[in-house]
Amino acid sequence: MTFSSIDDFRAALADLRAPDERAIAAARVRQTELTKPAGSLGRLENLAIFLAGWQGDSRPKIERARAAIFAGNHGVTVHGVSAFPASVTEQMVANFRAGGAAINALSGAAGLELQVTALDLDTPTADFTVAPAMTEAECLDALNAGAAAVGEDLDLLTVGEMGIGNSTAAAALCLRSFGGTAAEWIGPGTGVDADGIARKTAVVERARAFHADGPSDAFETLRRVGGREIVAIAGAVLRARQLGIAVVLDGFISSSAVAPLAVDNVDITAHCIAGHVSAEPGHARLLSKLRLDPLLALGMRLGEGSGAAVAVNVIRSALAAHNQMATFAEAQVAAKL
Amino acid sequence: MTFSSIDDFRAALADLRAPDERAIAAARVRQTELTKPAGSLGRLENLAIFLAGWQGDSRPKIERARAAIFAGNHGVTVHGVSAFPASVTEQMVANFRAGGAAINALSGAAGLELQVTALDLDTPTADFTVAPAMTEAECLDALNAGAAAVGEDLDLLTVGEMGIGNSTAAAALCLRSFGGTAAEWIGPGTGVDADGIARKTAVVERARAFHADGPSDAFETLRRVGGREIVAIAGAVLRARQLGIAVVLDGFISSSAVAPLAVDNVDITAHCIAGHVSAEPGHARLLSKLRLDPLLALGMRLGEGSGAAVAVNVIRSALAAHNQMATFAEAQVAAKL
Repeated sequence: MTFSSIDDFRAALADLRAPDERAIAAARVRQTELTKPAGSLGRLENLAIFLAGWQGDSRPKIERARAAIFAGNHGVTVHGVSAFPASVTEQMVANFRAGGAAINALSGAAGLELQVTALDLDTPTADFTVAPAMTEAECLDALNAGAAAVGEDLDLLTVGEMGIGNSTAAAALCLRSFGGTAAEWIGPGTGVDADGIARKTAVVERARAFHADGPSDAFETLRRVGGREIVAIAGAVLRARQLGIAVVLDGFISSSAVAPLAVDNVDITAHCIAGHVSAEPGHARLLSKLRLDPLLALGMRLGEGSGAAVAVNVIRSALAAHNQMATFAEAQVAAKL
Repeated sequence: MTFSSIDDFRAALADLRAPDERAIAAARVRQTELTKPAGSLGRLENLAIFLAGWQGDSRPKIERARAAIFAGNHGVTVHGVSAFPASVTEQMVANFRAGGAAINALSGAAGLELQVTALDLDTPTADFTVAPAMTEAECLDALNAGAAAVGEDLDLLTVGEMGIGNSTAAAALCLRSFGGTAAEWIGPGTGVDADGIARKTAVVERARAFHADGPSDAFETLRRVGGREIVAIAGAVLRARQLGIAVVLDGFISSSAVAPLAVDNVDITAHCIAGHVSAEPGHARLLSKLRLDPLLALGMRLGEGSGAAVAVNVIRSALAAHNQMATFAEAQVAAKL
């Protein structure tokens, strides 16, 4: 177990690793020497420098990268918050294992090894409008399940999720973390209609009221209104930070896992890349709160780590340019007038 | 020669091929059957359907794809419109051939075969503030050089350019095609300062005045204020359309090649994807005029086809999902409540 107790988790979140400033500086110098006008590769340059810092190597690489996908079931689905029946979570996990889902195709196209962790699908979390979603032990278990999915030798980690009803949990996490109104964090998710959005909004409002007097630290917020797959992502993100592994976040739900962590320690997103901004309306707002600028904006809203996987291709391009280009001196190209 | 005369070029532009509507319809149906909420892959779905139409196949593929990069020199560089000396065009072509440029790395990362066509680098175009940039024969030759770079068996084509001074030519093309003020189409290019921008603006204004009474059809605009590499891109885009090959445009300069064509036939961009929107301020405006919505926005401003190459990875992801995912029936997943 990575986090042996709640206090151990809290201590890890309070004491976050810094990137390697020497590798960052060396990567910055290299970028100025490559045969292109300074800055002309835009965010590709920043991505290479960012990964240099986390890998501690001025020439970072992506040889071993993993898409860690977590699945969980949600008691809150009794309120009709999804367009799909809760049984679809398990059906989609079977689809992941059989190779037929979007993330199978997209992780393959991005050179990611896919690792699916199904978290007690037979035991949904409690309905968080009337109880905490998880006991302390359940929440700690989910954090550790996430941490366990992070291999020490990874060059990059992407995270994703599957869980019917989890855009409602994500909205509840955002509301409890960053305030505002429930409606600001609610969207159609997999595709509910206006009535479904009204039901989701009411559920999230009731959850806020029910938990209003409870402790509001990261662990308690995750435990009260999260879900196992979301908590696992929080554990994976924190574990990756301990290991110095950069993380590519996916959509609204993946990002919501980081929200409670960021309230306790805003620096938690320093090793994170927002792979994309999804069509779910709350995601752009959430990324702004997390101080993350998304790489892609393709109108995706699937989850499963799908947007993060597409983004990995852009990161690979960034490293290809950084590592393979000639310098002005090597190519005998005049640097400027 | 693809275009045996100016009239032949004009006839080709006037009579553009349509996509295969049956393949489009079949690809649309397939998208609704895949194991995901309808529409949840956003633009990835549209890309797959778009390529189905141009390939005439409901399951489009990218097996053979080419990055066609064109280089040319510009008489207008005598006015100090670039931060780099004109000799850099030839030096960068040598860098392309030696494998050290950004496009070498990025086309490799995207699985594109790189084809570089250097166009009479020893003979810059005329200074278009005092003469047409090219004779009719020179312009027709450049169109045909572009057309010749399009192989009949390609699944996808990307286009790019190298030419010191060519962001000034691009601005002149945009101004002559779509009007507005010179300043609206001028930007820092490879990185000129405020004085450089003032020089570029003055040059483009003088070019407008000099050519104001000349014919304004696509061929004449390309000939008067274009450059050989830009005209070649126009020829490649038109030739690709004849062959039913979709084209990924790169940045401001690549896109400016299409501007005069779009004035004569707005449908010319129907087989084009805007790979990205660059940091060059005129590019977003130009894409809007061309009715193209860029796939990426990464602050790139290098040219060479660099942004288009990065975008190909996204298109490959789109096809991976489209072709490899299971249907609801195949995976035995419940489609909806």
